[in-house]
Amino acid sequence: MKSTIVTIGDEILIGQILDTNSRYISQALNRIGVVVAERTSIGDSAEQIVSTLDRALAQSDIVIITGGLGPTKDDITKHTLSRYFNSELIYNEQVGNFVEQLLSRRGIAFTELNRGQAMVPKCCTVLHNAHGTAPGMWFEHEGKVVVSLPGVPFEMVHLIDDSVVPMLAEHFELKAIVHRTMITSGIPESILAERIASWEDSLPEVLHLAYLPAPNVVRLRLSAYEVEEQSAKALIDSEFEKLRYIIPEAIVGFENATVEELVHRWMTENGKTLSVAESCTGGNIASKFTAMAGASAYFQAGVVSYSNEAKRDILGVNMDDIVRYGAVSETVAIQMAEGVKRVGQSDYAIATTGIAGPTGGSELKPVGTVWIAVSTPKGTFATLKNCGTDRGQVIDRATAYAIKLLYDNL
Amino acid sequence: MKSTIVTIGDEILIGQILDTNSRYISQALNRIGVVVAERTSIGDSAEQIVSTLDRALAQSDIVIITGGLGPTKDDITKHTLSRYFNSELIYNEQVGNFVEQLLSRRGIAFTELNRGQAMVPKCCTVLHNAHGTAPGMWFEHEGKVVVSLPGVPFEMVHLIDDSVVPMLAEHFELKAIVHRTMITSGIPESILAERIASWEDSLPEVLHLAYLPAPNVVRLRLSAYEVEEQSAKALIDSEFEKLRYIIPEAIVGFENATVEELVHRWMTENGKTLSVAESCTGGNIASKFTAMAGASAYFQAGVVSYSNEAKRDILGVNMDDIVRYGAVSETVAIQMAEGVKRVGQSDYAIATTGIAGPTGGSELKPVGTVWIAVSTPKGTFATLKNCGTDRGQVIDRATAYAIKLLYDNL
Repeated sequence: MKSTIVTIGDEILIGQILDTNSRYISQALNRIGVVVAERTSIGDSAEQIVSTLDRALAQSDIVIITGGLGPTKDDITKHTLSRYFNSELIYNEQVGNFVEQLLSRRGIAFTELNRGQAMVPKCCTVLHNAHGTAPGMWFEHEGKVVVSLPGVPFEMVHLIDDSVVPMLAEHFELKAIVHRTMITSGIPESILAERIASWEDSLPEVLHLAYLPAPNVVRLRLSAYEVEEQSAKALIDSEFEKLRYIIPEAIVGFENATVEELVHRWMTENGKTLSVAESCTGGNIASKFTAMAGASAYFQAGVVSYSNEAKRDILGVNMDDIVRYGAVSETVAIQMAEGVKRVGQSDYAIATTGIAGPTGGSELKPVGTVWIAVSTPKGTFATLKNCGTDRGQVIDRATAYAIKLLYDNL
Repeated sequence: MKSTIVTIGDEILIGQILDTNSRYISQALNRIGVVVAERTSIGDSAEQIVSTLDRALAQSDIVIITGGLGPTKDDITKHTLSRYFNSELIYNEQVGNFVEQLLSRRGIAFTELNRGQAMVPKCCTVLHNAHGTAPGMWFEHEGKVVVSLPGVPFEMVHLIDDSVVPMLAEHFELKAIVHRTMITSGIPESILAERIASWEDSLPEVLHLAYLPAPNVVRLRLSAYEVEEQSAKALIDSEFEKLRYIIPEAIVGFENATVEELVHRWMTENGKTLSVAESCTGGNIASKFTAMAGASAYFQAGVVSYSNEAKRDILGVNMDDIVRYGAVSETVAIQMAEGVKRVGQSDYAIATTGIAGPTGGSELKPVGTVWIAVSTPKGTFATLKNCGTDRGQVIDRATAYAIKLLYDNL
């Protein structure tokens, strides 16, 4: 079963917002066996919506649309869909009452524009939006399904999970899509490709191999589309098993587990604890761990010691050493890691201190210079990394290197 | 001048990665006056690439493609483009030598696959990629331009900035696109729309109004496409000026400045300093500030005090109060804010303590319960917020509320 995802909104085309809806919907559809053939983003234009719908319905069985359902004049998706399906807008009392209640709980008056949000095409099935004022809509047309959802990410997520996914699984006879990703580290992509070339050439036709390179890591993904789930999983497992003999030293793990997820799992399973002291990464490492449910079981403390005084007062870094070696130095990184391990009373600690830029660099320590320290029950050490030239890139890379350095020393 | 952006890669369609390239390219094209008519993401399939190119060239003058230029077999963009333009691949010595140097600096052997990366369609202009092994390619075809770039975001960014943008500005006669966004706060979208309805109805036809609602904030964007820049800017300014008389209490600021950017600007301009103590937001607030260049001028310290001991030892929170009122309480939030203000020696401080979930909630304090405290030179106070039910949502909303609460009290 093929699908097309359409996100509507001028704010996407001018780059004012990042389209995260498409990704969420892609993942949800893949999980239930619906192949995403194309994702497209278009403006708030009736003409574009109609031509895109024509094309999407020609190439796929399912079309998921988000956006353009707000109460204001720039939102035209609902009117356009109603005309597209030769329907008319009628007042839906259930939606009207719900929106009125929702607004009254928040102390907001129910206006004529909100009343308009309860007008829905006669031909659609209304999908209850428990978290907002625009309902979802489910259309059936010549054996195909078109779903229109609000663009507010949180409202879309609930509608996809609570309504669209179960309804699609009920409506269509769906097979499975199986993706499994092996994480390798230490072999550059082109060398890796040569080493596994004969394995790749002998893969069964039903399996598709993709290389996904990232700093320090190449992921290998095997995918099987519209298959019987258990046998496809077994087939992929047996193919990956062969790589244990070909690149045994490079296999880090499986699935999309990020390195922080691997650390998270290890800390949880081993009952150990972690603290983090950050200068240039500014809280990014702490937020990666604390974003994961269950982090409170092992994450003790994070300190973003941006100022030298914070390094001294909170972490106990020696101010003379800061003056002598500089805040970006091996000595300071090590003292930060040991300091946060001590104040956080944890078994492990990470510390970063570097120059994120755009200013603050020098010839000796250019922007991107980052000292990363890891403290374990066995001791503390630091390593120097050049993390690029762009502030966001420096923060991201230093974060990745630091978490990887900890992982390698668990 | 119209454009279509095409991102290629199965990893986008299955939702394995978030497509950030499209947004970056959209912003870059808008800045030089190129209208983005559509953004589309397709798989690594020659058939799909060809049909998408046909359509993109029919509807636009410029097509920017990213992805599918790696050294491995799943990357087919270059071969497909070469066939599409009836060209042939030839070895480009300059690219070959550069890739060889780049790899040798990183201690990696130059393989047959890397040699393949220096093979480029004879008909294209090569765009030098200083940061990776796949060159960019510029094709001209019946007065239209097709550009193919590697999908690695950092490499794409440099090629867009250093080559594609200046070349497009040189090649085409471009007019300007002007977007200006007013930030309002405190009036719900539907009420706002009613209050400014007659203003909206009398807008000149060249201006397009969009409503962009977000928690606590509605942004109003006025856009003018392919216009003379100075007069369009003046026109937009004069229209926004009228709103000062219609919704004077609601106007927070202009442009896409996030609330953290407004705080950043205020702290910098006023020479004041900030520290942050986070429990449930786990470093997210600190990382929002430290992501901005120049944050080191005012950001003193962040403390992620996840454990009760960290709250006591680093921030000086009274352990008896934690036991009596709970870690998620007004008292603890206030002590955290005052504690981090003291240890960070800063003028202002924010603190959050709450239940991010999915576990840890109770009937009295369900998941989403967050106490937010702000400490200013005038004093410290805390407020209770329900930030939703989903861990990521709780972290995001608590972060937004906390930064807004600080901003309102500067």
